[in-house]
Amino acid sequence: MNDEIRVDPSLTPFFNPQGIALIGASADPNKLGYALARNLVQSNYPGALHFVNPKGGTLLGRKVYTNILEVPEPVDLAILLVPAPAIPGLLRDCGRRGISAAIIGAGGFRETGEEGAALEEECLAIARKYYIRLLGPNCIGIMDTHLPLDATFLPPPPPRPGDVAFISHSGAIMAAVVDWARGQDLGLSHLISLGNQADICETDVLAPLALDVHTQVLTLYLEGVRDGRRFVHEATKVSRVKPIVALKVGRFASGQRAVASHTGALAGRESAFSAAFWRAGVIRAETSEEMFDWARALAWSPLPKGRSIAILTSAGGPGVTAADALEINGMQLADLKPETVAQLKQILPSAASFYNPVDMLATATPEQYAACLQAMLLDEGVHGALVIIPPLPMQTAGAVAKALIPVIYISDKPVAVTLMGDRLIQEAIEHFRAARIPEYRFPERAASALAILAQRADFLSRPAGEPQPLADIDHEQVKRLLQPYLEGAIALGNAIPLPAEVLNQILEAYGVPTLAIRMAKTSEEAVQLAEQVGFPVALKVASSAITHKSDIGGVLLDLPDGESVAHGFDVILQNARQAHPEAGVQGVYVQRMTRPGQEVIIGATQDEQFGALVMFGSGGVEVEALQDVAFALAPITDHEIEHLLQTTWAGRKLGGYRNLPPADRQAVVDVLKRVAQLAADFPQLAEVEINPLRVFEAGKGAVVVDARAQIKTG
Amino acid sequence: MNDEIRVDPSLTPFFNPQGIALIGASADPNKLGYALARNLVQSNYPGALHFVNPKGGTLLGRKVYTNILEVPEPVDLAILLVPAPAIPGLLRDCGRRGISAAIIGAGGFRETGEEGAALEEECLAIARKYYIRLLGPNCIGIMDTHLPLDATFLPPPPPRPGDVAFISHSGAIMAAVVDWARGQDLGLSHLISLGNQADICETDVLAPLALDVHTQVLTLYLEGVRDGRRFVHEATKVSRVKPIVALKVGRFASGQRAVASHTGALAGRESAFSAAFWRAGVIRAETSEEMFDWARALAWSPLPKGRSIAILTSAGGPGVTAADALEINGMQLADLKPETVAQLKQILPSAASFYNPVDMLATATPEQYAACLQAMLLDEGVHGALVIIPPLPMQTAGAVAKALIPVIYISDKPVAVTLMGDRLIQEAIEHFRAARIPEYRFPERAASALAILAQRADFLSRPAGEPQPLADIDHEQVKRLLQPYLEGAIALGNAIPLPAEVLNQILEAYGVPTLAIRMAKTSEEAVQLAEQVGFPVALKVASSAITHKSDIGGVLLDLPDGESVAHGFDVILQNARQAHPEAGVQGVYVQRMTRPGQEVIIGATQDEQFGALVMFGSGGVEVEALQDVAFALAPITDHEIEHLLQTTWAGRKLGGYRNLPPADRQAVVDVLKRVAQLAADFPQLAEVEINPLRVFEAGKGAVVVDARAQIKTG
Repeated sequence: MNDEIRVDPSLTPFFNPQGIALIGASADPNKLGYALARNLVQSNYPGALHFVNPKGGTLLGRKVYTNILEVPEPVDLAILLVPAPAIPGLLRDCGRRGISAAIIGAGGFRETGEEGAALEEECLAIARKYYIRLLGPNCIGIMDTHLPLDATFLPPPPPRPGDVAFISHSGAIMAAVVDWARGQDLGLSHLISLGNQADICETDVLAPLALDVHTQVLTLYLEGVRDGRRFVHEATKVSRVKPIVALKVGRFASGQRAVASHTGALAGRESAFSAAFWRAGVIRAETSEEMFDWARALAWSPLPKGRSIAILTSAGGPGVTAADALEINGMQLADLKPETVAQLKQILPSAASFYNPVDMLATATPEQYAACLQAMLLDEGVHGALVIIPPLPMQTAGAVAKALIPVIYISDKPVAVTLMGDRLIQEAIEHFRAARIPEYRFPERAASALAILAQRADFLSRPAGEPQPLADIDHEQVKRLLQPYLEGAIALGNAIPLPAEVLNQILEAYGVPTLAIRMAKTSEEAVQLAEQVGFPVALKVASSAITHKSDIGGVLLDLPDGESVAHGFDVILQNARQAHPEAGVQGVYVQRMTRPGQEVIIGATQDEQFGALVMFGSGGVEVEALQDVAFALAPITDHEIEHLLQTTWAGRKLGGYRNLPPADRQAVVDVLKRVAQLAADFPQLAEVEINPLRVFEAGKGAVVVDARAQIKTG
Repeated sequence: MNDEIRVDPSLTPFFNPQGIALIGASADPNKLGYALARNLVQSNYPGALHFVNPKGGTLLGRKVYTNILEVPEPVDLAILLVPAPAIPGLLRDCGRRGISAAIIGAGGFRETGEEGAALEEECLAIARKYYIRLLGPNCIGIMDTHLPLDATFLPPPPPRPGDVAFISHSGAIMAAVVDWARGQDLGLSHLISLGNQADICETDVLAPLALDVHTQVLTLYLEGVRDGRRFVHEATKVSRVKPIVALKVGRFASGQRAVASHTGALAGRESAFSAAFWRAGVIRAETSEEMFDWARALAWSPLPKGRSIAILTSAGGPGVTAADALEINGMQLADLKPETVAQLKQILPSAASFYNPVDMLATATPEQYAACLQAMLLDEGVHGALVIIPPLPMQTAGAVAKALIPVIYISDKPVAVTLMGDRLIQEAIEHFRAARIPEYRFPERAASALAILAQRADFLSRPAGEPQPLADIDHEQVKRLLQPYLEGAIALGNAIPLPAEVLNQILEAYGVPTLAIRMAKTSEEAVQLAEQVGFPVALKVASSAITHKSDIGGVLLDLPDGESVAHGFDVILQNARQAHPEAGVQGVYVQRMTRPGQEVIIGATQDEQFGALVMFGSGGVEVEALQDVAFALAPITDHEIEHLLQTTWAGRKLGGYRNLPPADRQAVVDVLKRVAQLAADFPQLAEVEINPLRVFEAGKGAVVVDARAQIKTG
């Protein structure tokens, strides 16, 4: 798998520079140019280091060159820490000097408005001309604690070397995380501050970190992604090799868009990110603490083979809390085997609890902790353990840690430790960290870390692979059918809805079964058409301007005869005119009623960043209220379809529920796959929505009862 | 309000002891009896202090008495730190000595099994005989940082004096919290370790802490409550005066019970706790960190007058995170007035963001922080502020803190501070803590603290008061109707279902409208009854053994004529026999079909700890799957009814949704109130469930379409 991950060689100077020139090095301790020079020197960077400042002189015992052109070899990375307006000229100098990589620390670019954006464009053009790769502008820089290299202007000391890389869109967050990591004694491998991403973006740095020997886990602070599909493609490959944990902010920043369907209303940017992360195996954290809690567990622990966890404690209260937290996180308490229970009975006093959670009582000794944990980890029904060390009246936490570490070390099952307290547990914390065993202050944190390990194991157990394109579709036919409406949309300069009968033909061309539908202009015609398709029939208003037809009395169901059809035709026209006097009504659709079955919604939409998305869930008119929907990227994989069906009640219900017989699940899978393919093949289809898809009993198929679609302009 | 809170005078020795005798004081530093003696002395307890040990001698420079009977006055609190078997004898001595309060630290009682439970009972009997109040056994003791008094055996130093009291069922959690609080520099006022609660329980200590001048917030670690309704009663009074934050564990410990309705299946212990906490105004935390995060905000901050929050930051990333977190917590971003924006423009550089979140940029000075916050807090549309202090390249966090504190101090709006980092912010943390301004490491924590303040404000804005009993109910009639079935249940020694027609009469007696229902024994009788009630009719199998009638084809709807009724009668009997050959079938119910409307479920059940509960939500057969239900204590207040209707989609939908017309919300309110009263009046009704209640258009009322009830034995 590793051979698929390719690092762009032009990025090498950022990860393994031969020589660095700091342009804007300063002797004034109040300037960032001094802070960065100091960090470069103090970090013991093993390559060549050059300072540049037009004033010349010396700095930190080194010569300061007045110009980048004077700097001797080797130098492949320039750090530009000068005011924004000076950057273009200096970049040109770097280009002439043959430097192929630059970090622009200064702000004053795109983030300040139009003028700054123009300056940023200018810098990018110069960089392209001279084949210079750019990090920034408006960034804090990079750090590699193992090389070592500190090319940031953050206050010392740097975080200690570790195995977690941190990539951030926000410089402030990075500065805060570094300071916080110091306080937590959290080791980091790489820090990359991306700034405005004029050139290098979050996706570019995934591969180099995936191949970095010191990095075990990648953590990302994301405010968005530059190119959604490219991110998914790269992250999917990297996730197979190393876990990626991301904190994505800007959840509510998607704003309001005009939408013409339930799918459109529900498909915020967050649905797209969730779908993209799911496919790519990116683990999504909700807070920074969670991100680093999980990163430690992922970096240090073996993965569990299942979700059954054993809890070992010496106090009842925290054991109960841990059991609660495991359940909330989708894990379960392991049933200990009789042999294991028998072993525990030999180790512990009779008043102890021998069933999971195992409570050794407050008299627990380090030896009992170790012996019990060993017995529990050897139980085949146990996939991992959560060990709780509350303050013990007669023992130190440090002694318990020392006894436990060898047991945890030789096991191939993950163990998360809860060390409760603060001052009394410092020695124990040090022991566990040195042994690379994740420990947490609260049982809830340890439980959530174990759940993330299980999630990671699930991801790795899914075979890799792209969705397979469908063969039995008529792409050309859809192209032909769409052509006039595309032209119409372009002419109008606006999105337009597709007529129902055209959409039906499009769906049929992609192998999605629909009910024959015909449009009647007069009530006589409606009766004739009804006689042709066979009673009972449904009537629906045909108007591109009326989005939610049933809301305005534009739909009549189950009409048994000609008389009711003739009357219904008039009623629908009257209702439509009353509700939307301004709307053009083309006529009334006549459709045969179909037999009963379960009903689901299947929709598709186009996300700005991630392209085609498909939605599945509970249909009807209460879609937005029930929120029983889930999204996936389109085209869709079999595993994604399973995920959609398992995470929605509409999907689970297909297997039958109480007096509801099982429905044709396979037919739903098939329609989902076809609609996803359609949305992926035709990005012009801004929204497609089947609501409902009627699903008959197992083996009897499914049929589109109602659908709508919207064509995008341009 | 305060005058309603009464402290039992027999508890005074625990909160203000005149003299303390430690029985089991030890000179061996490895014994708990030494640790406790040391803590008593080192805490500078101002009252009399006496050590007792049969060995005599001196300890920590004090005489050790060989017997409690020798100890001089004053002594009103004894601490017994000797092995369990010695406790009864010593308790008797205490009683003879006239001591009226005792803390039993030792374990070896109820928590170890039957023998221990018997010993505990014996101790309680002795205590009752001598009028001694007991804390424990199996507890860590008590601490009052202000008196001061440290009557625990926890390792020193004690937490520093503060305004948060902590009451815990778990000694281990208390020990961990104390150590953790030291590390966090969190001040505490009282610690009370409840242990086995042979006598004093969580409810008993609420009132004394509510009246303690040093305590601003009560925090509780609960594993359950002894007497649910008494807890609610006391906590409701105390919550009006001081906030209570509770962490309730054992969420999944409720186990499996046999249930006969959706209500029963959904009413776990957690629903009861949520309902009880809601009535009592108890704020429920999910983790210990949350509990103390919130406690600090509640202790130190004014309450907001609304949910609109202004964010002030000097970096974009954390501002976005904070905005996300506010929305997730049900708060919103305030719209700043044009005047405020104009003021900000005078303070900040033009590249700053002047709209909420206000981003001052990384060049922000302490003076800008203070001036901007002042302007924002003076805006009438702003109900509170969230200030973010990321690491600043040119300023210290301490300087920013000093500038902000006076502004926050004089405002009557709450301000939560996010101080990002660790080592670089220690000075700022000290300043804010000294000024009693809540600060957090992450924006998410600050946002959740502000949301809790808003929740507290909501609670206080609800008028206090008990549910009003209903006048127009026929209690006697229900008693008469229930009598034979109660006798039947007792005779059977089992729960039994009520026949539909009896339940209908019961509901009618409480003013709940039902549809006339009659039972037919033959198909001819069914046709006759149908002609009496009028077509169309519904037929339902009448069998006490068949719980979910529609699941087995035991219900037929909308039968238009005699022929279909005769046929339907046979079909139902056949289906019932096929599905439940063993079930006795009494006949078939005939009921008139009613007109369409919205459908909801209203249920009631009896909780072991909290008594009658009422449930409201989306009905039908998918109740458990949709989980759109909420619970309240019965009888129910108007505010609780509003809460149920607002927190469920079924409730919100009553106001109308799309083409669904508004339904008779008042009729639902009325039925809820009546069912709650019924459940509260008749605890023998183990489960009552109306599913569905058909709700007609506004002003047209509602009617019970189907209902079931179960009578409890004994």
